[in-house]
Formats: sequence, structure tokens, C-alpha cells
Amino acid sequence: MSLKAFETMKKGETLALDEVLANLKADDAGLIAAIAQQHDTGEVLMLAYMNEKSIRETLETGQVCYWSRSRQTYWRKGESSGHRQSLVSMSFDCDGDCILLQVDQKGPACHTNRRDCFFFRVEGDKVVIHSAPQ
Amino acid sequence: MSLKAFETMKKGETLALDEVLANLKADDAGLIAAIAQQHDTGEVLMLAYMNEKSIRETLETGQVCYWSRSRQTYWRKGESSGHRQSLVSMSFDCDGDCILLQVDQKGPACHTNRRDCFFFRVEGDKVVIHSAPQ
Repeated sequence: MSLKAFETMKKGETLALDEVLANLKADDAGLIAAIAQQHDTGEVLMLAYMNEKSIRETLETGQVCYWSRSRQTYWRKGESSGHRQSLVSMSFDCDGDCILLQVDQKGPACHTNRRDCFFFRVEGDKVVIHSAPQ
Repeated sequence: MSLKAFETMKKGETLALDEVLANLKADDAGLIAAIAQQHDTGEVLMLAYMNEKSIRETLETGQVCYWSRSRQTYWRKGESSGHRQSLVSMSFDCDGDCILLQVDQKGPACHTNRRDCFFFRVEGDKVVIHSAPQ
């Protein structure tokens, strides 16, 4: 499945959410990559994975819920740490295989207590640790 | 493999690029998700996939090269369309399974000629087409 059938629709036209969710292109494990971006600063915070149930829960509760591939269970971001992600908006890409979450991240998004997960930055033939835990 | 062994390093410390590349956590197809973000506006443009060879080519040439899962070949972004992505910076995440590319995108990033791929936006129980082709 994919959203290709809908890509020629015009700006402002609408589809039913259920129809879009039914046409997402999940992987063999039923998962779709989800990018979390801080809505006001534009920082890309992290990449994680969602299934249809976690997408629906996130839309219903306004708190981001992923599927944890390592723990094989739902992962309500910040449930234990308090570093919650409130949903601002959710968008799907042209292929229906990626989600962009605009969020309001409370505190660090990364399990290392850094604000975002992308702290290994390439500089020439080196990689520099680019940020410190908060 | 993963970058977990390095996550406690301090800000400003360095690793050899080869060591980091050898420890990335690719999927069974040898691929890693790569997010492209416009470096100056913060727009998240697209998600695609890279393997080690495309990572190295991107760093050497300064032009972003992905691996196309649908065509099963290297995909030098903009090679046919002219909508090239020039690399500004490359970072890896804490798990070593995602890349953040800061790029300078010439024209539309999406194959639909929209600036970015995330034009299916959820609004209540509908999904709205959020942008028009350029």
C-alpha cells in the first residue's frame, strides 16, 4: 500500500483519516519511521517508530506514543522520565512510509539526557561529540 | 553494532570517522534512515536511506547520494531533475541507526515537485493536502 494514488490531489483537498491510515506503507513488522521535530525551533530531536495503534493513541491523547523495537512494546515518551512529547501536528509523506511529528518536547528527547539524539557530528575524517547532557 | 559505547563521551571529544561508520546499526539490507533538513530554515524535507558507500560518497562529493530501495541502486539526488541536495553537515544519532543531513536543497525535494514530502497533514478525522507542487 501507499499514498501514491492521492499525490495529485490539490492543496486544501481532504481525505478521511481512516483511508490514509489504511494506505500507509508499514514495514514487515507493521512499523513506520517517525521524525520528531520541535515545533517552534525546528530542531530535529529523534527518529523512532510507530504502528497504527500508536498513531491513533497519539492523535487521541495528544501525547506521543511510539513502538519500541528494542523492548517490543508501546513507548509512551516521557512516561517514566517526565520528558514528554506533546503533539502539535502530524503529517505523512508522499510514499506513506514516514511520519513527521511536530512536537513540544519537555526537557531532553535523548535517553542520554541530551536535547536531541544527533550528537555525533562528522567533521572531516573525525566525528565530534556535539552536545552535552542537560 | 551501535554507538552506545561512545554515548558517555564528553562534548568536543572526537572519534575516527571510520570507527563510527564501522559501528553504525544498519538494517538487514545494510541501510540506515537519513533525514534531510534544509539547513537554514529547519524544514524537514524528506526521509530516505543510505548505506556505507553512499555515506562516504556524500562526504567526498558534498552532494547527497542515497540508496533507492525501490530501484535498488544508488540515487544521486537531483541527478536527473536538477533538484540537488548539497551537504552542509552530517550527524549520527545515539543508537547509530539514523542520520541527520543538513542540506541546501535546490528546488523541490519531493518527486511530486513539492518542496517537502510531508504534505498529508492530519486535521481532526481528516487529512488535508497541505502544499502544492512548485
